[in-house]
Amino acid sequence: MQELLPAEQAVFNKLKQSIEDVYHRHGFISIETPIIDRTEVLFSKAGGDTEKQIYKVVKTDEATDDADQALRFDHTVPLARYVVQHENDLTFPFHVAQIGRNFRGERAQKGRFREFYQCDVDIIGRNELPIAYDAKVIATVYAALKTFDLPEMKVRISNRKVLSGFLQILNLSDKTSAISNIIDHAEKISPEQFTQALRDLDIPEENVVKITTFTNTHGTPDEIKSSLKTIIDTSSLTESLNELRTVYDLLVAEGLQQYILIDLMIVRGLDYYTGTVVETFLPEYRAIGSIASGGRYDNLASNFTDQKLPGVGVSIGLTRLFYILNQHGLLKTATEKPIDIAIIPITDNEHTFSIQLASKLRAQNKSVDVVLTDKKLGDKLAYAGKIAKSAIIIGESEVYSNNLQVKDLETGATSPLVLE
Amino acid sequence: MQELLPAEQAVFNKLKQSIEDVYHRHGFISIETPIIDRTEVLFSKAGGDTEKQIYKVVKTDEATDDADQALRFDHTVPLARYVVQHENDLTFPFHVAQIGRNFRGERAQKGRFREFYQCDVDIIGRNELPIAYDAKVIATVYAALKTFDLPEMKVRISNRKVLSGFLQILNLSDKTSAISNIIDHAEKISPEQFTQALRDLDIPEENVVKITTFTNTHGTPDEIKSSLKTIIDTSSLTESLNELRTVYDLLVAEGLQQYILIDLMIVRGLDYYTGTVVETFLPEYRAIGSIASGGRYDNLASNFTDQKLPGVGVSIGLTRLFYILNQHGLLKTATEKPIDIAIIPITDNEHTFSIQLASKLRAQNKSVDVVLTDKKLGDKLAYAGKIAKSAIIIGESEVYSNNLQVKDLETGATSPLVLE
Repeated sequence: MQELLPAEQAVFNKLKQSIEDVYHRHGFISIETPIIDRTEVLFSKAGGDTEKQIYKVVKTDEATDDADQALRFDHTVPLARYVVQHENDLTFPFHVAQIGRNFRGERAQKGRFREFYQCDVDIIGRNELPIAYDAKVIATVYAALKTFDLPEMKVRISNRKVLSGFLQILNLSDKTSAISNIIDHAEKISPEQFTQALRDLDIPEENVVKITTFTNTHGTPDEIKSSLKTIIDTSSLTESLNELRTVYDLLVAEGLQQYILIDLMIVRGLDYYTGTVVETFLPEYRAIGSIASGGRYDNLASNFTDQKLPGVGVSIGLTRLFYILNQHGLLKTATEKPIDIAIIPITDNEHTFSIQLASKLRAQNKSVDVVLTDKKLGDKLAYAGKIAKSAIIIGESEVYSNNLQVKDLETGATSPLVLE
Repeated sequence: MQELLPAEQAVFNKLKQSIEDVYHRHGFISIETPIIDRTEVLFSKAGGDTEKQIYKVVKTDEATDDADQALRFDHTVPLARYVVQHENDLTFPFHVAQIGRNFRGERAQKGRFREFYQCDVDIIGRNELPIAYDAKVIATVYAALKTFDLPEMKVRISNRKVLSGFLQILNLSDKTSAISNIIDHAEKISPEQFTQALRDLDIPEENVVKITTFTNTHGTPDEIKSSLKTIIDTSSLTESLNELRTVYDLLVAEGLQQYILIDLMIVRGLDYYTGTVVETFLPEYRAIGSIASGGRYDNLASNFTDQKLPGVGVSIGLTRLFYILNQHGLLKTATEKPIDIAIIPITDNEHTFSIQLASKLRAQNKSVDVVLTDKKLGDKLAYAGKIAKSAIIIGESEVYSNNLQVKDLETGATSPLVLE
C-alpha cells in the first residue's frame, strides 16, 4: 500500500482534485459505489488473472467459504450494477465520474499497490451510444492529465473490431483471444519472441508476417488504411476503420492532433472491451506503461439485465502515476507551508484573545493555527516555522493595545495586521 | 451500504468538502491511511463489540485462518500506527484531518451502515499535550457542523477522570468499567432500570443514589462543582474538574457559550479514552444520538511504541448524519442542474465547431456538455433540460455566422453568447 507524508498527501490531493474539476467541467457527474459489493457482482466480469486478485471480506467469525462479499477491483463492474439498479433515476447518456480506491491482491512489487486510486470517466447509453462519445471520454481524460504538467503524452487508440475483422479475413477467428494476448504483450518481448509465439499457435508463416505487419501499423487514419491494404482486402473493415477515423477526427478537433496516434498494437487485456481501445504513454518514460486506459464495452451489464447499455470509459491510475512521477522527480513538491498564520499566545492569559483573532482571520478564508503548547516562545516560533507561512505573537501588550504585527516566517519581515 | 443517486451524491460531496475546508482553515492537515491494515494493528485497540465487527480480508485462494489483514473500523487506530511509523517526519503537536470510509460488520438496521464516512480531527503531542488542545478539536468540529445549517446543537462534554475519581471516593474503582457502561446507556433505559442495573452490581443503596445524582449532573463548571459537593468531598477531584473548566472556558472563548454543556452522563463506550470526552446532539432530534464524538486518549500508541504520544480527537459520522438529515428533510437538496451549458450540434457536421466552443467555455470555468446523440433536436433539448442550466444550439447558420444564442432552460429566455 502507498502511504504518504502530509506534504506528499497535499500534492496527491491537489492532483486528485484537479482531475475531478476537469471531469466536472466536461459534463461528468460524480458518484460513489460501495467498496464492498456482492461476490456474484464482482466476479461476473473479472476474468482470469483479475479473479485471483479479488479480496473477499469475511466477518471475524465467518469462514471464507461463506464469503459472499468482496472488495471492488475496478470502478466499471460496480458501475454496471449501479446503472442497472438505478436505471429509472438516471439521465442517459449517463456521464459519470468515479474517483476512489480499488483493491487487488497483486504480488508486492515496486509501483504496484494493492490499494490504489483510479479516476474514471464513463458514458453509458441506453440501447445506443454513438461512436462520438468514445472521443469525448478520451479528450476528457487527456484534459485532466494535462493539468499534471507531464512530459509530452501520446494517446494511442485502436479498435477491437479492426483486429477481429482482420483475423476473420485470415481465417484465424478461433485464435482471436490467444493472438490478442500476444499482441498485447508485443512491447514486452523481442520481435523474435513475438513471431515465435505466433508460430507456436500453428499459424502459417504467411499470416505470421501479416500479423506482425498489422501489429506494427500506426499513424493517421489514411496511413493505417494504406498500410493494411498492402496485406489484406480492407473492404470488410470499412465500418470499423470508419469508427477509428471518427474518433481520430474528433480528437483532432479537441486539439490533440500532435498527441493522438492510431496504433493497432493496442488491444487492452480485459475481455469486456468490444470497440475503441485506448492507452496513454509518456514516450520519454516508455517503461512506465500506460497511465490512462480504457475503451468501449457494448455488453458490460449483460449479467444483470436484458436492457442494452453500451458504454465507454477511460481511467487514470492515479496512485501508480503519482508513485512513478515522484520516482522520476516529475512532481512539483509542496514547498509551501500548509498554514497561513500561526497565532502564538505568550501565556495562557492570551488564549481567549488569540482564539477570537483566529476566528476573524478564518472568516477571511485564512488557515490559522493557535499555538497552545506550554513551551517557551522560541520553541513556539520554531514550531510555527515548520507549519506556517507567518506568525502573530500575542502578549499582554498586544491584547491591551490591539496593535498586531504579522511576522513573515520566510523572510523575517514584520508588517502590521490589517483585518479586512 | 448507502448508495446515492447523482443529485444526492452532489449534496453529500459538498458537505464533505465543507467539513474538510473548515478543518484546513483550523490548521489541520489531511492524511490518508490505507483501508486495509494488519490485523495485529487493528485488533490492538478494538475491544469487545468492535472486535466482532471487524472485516477480515483474504485473497480468493486463502483460508480465513490465514487472514493477517483487515479493514480499518475507525481512523484513530491506523493513525496511531501512522504516527509511530512516521514520527521523525512529522511536526508535533501533529494536527491531522482524516476523511474517509471505515468498515464495520454491524447488523443491518436503518441508518446504520457497514461502510461509512467519518471525518476526524486529531491532535497528537509528543510526551505532552496541554488540555487546551481538547477545546481546539471540539471547536473545530463544531465549526464544521455549523456549515450544515443544522437545528440547534448541544455539545456535551465530560472528563473520564472525574468519573474515575468519583468512583474511587465511593470505593468502587473495581467496578469502573461496569458502572461506566450503565451510565453510557442511561438515556436508553428508564430511571428504574438504571438504578436496578446498579443494584445488580451489589452497590450499596447510598452509593446508587450518589451515582444517580452524579449521572444527572450537568451545567457550567460552577454548577457541576456545587452539585458534586452535595454528595462527596471534591478535593481529590480538583485537577480533573480544572481540566473540565479549562475546556469549557476555551469553548466559551470560541463563541460556543450557548451550545456547550458539561454533562457527567457522557462517558463514551471505547476503552481508549482517558480524559475529556465529548458528544454532540441535536436536542430537537434527540433519538438520533451523537452526531460527533470523541475525546482524549493518553496511551493510544502504547502497543506500538514506548514513546508517549497523547492525543485528542473528535469525529463526525457523516454517512449516518447525512442519512438522518435526509430522513428528516433537513438537507437542502440540489435542485440546481449540474451542468452550466449543454451545446447541441444539430448534425455531425457541427461536432467540431461545438467541441471547440466547449473548450473555450470550459476555459472560463463553465461545466459544458456537448450533446452527441443521433436523436432529433427535440430529444436533444429534452436531454439538455434534465442535466443543464442552459443550452446553445449549433446549426449550419451558427457555424457560418458565429452568432450564438444561449437559451436559459429554466425560463426559456435567450440571450446572445458573450465569450469573455
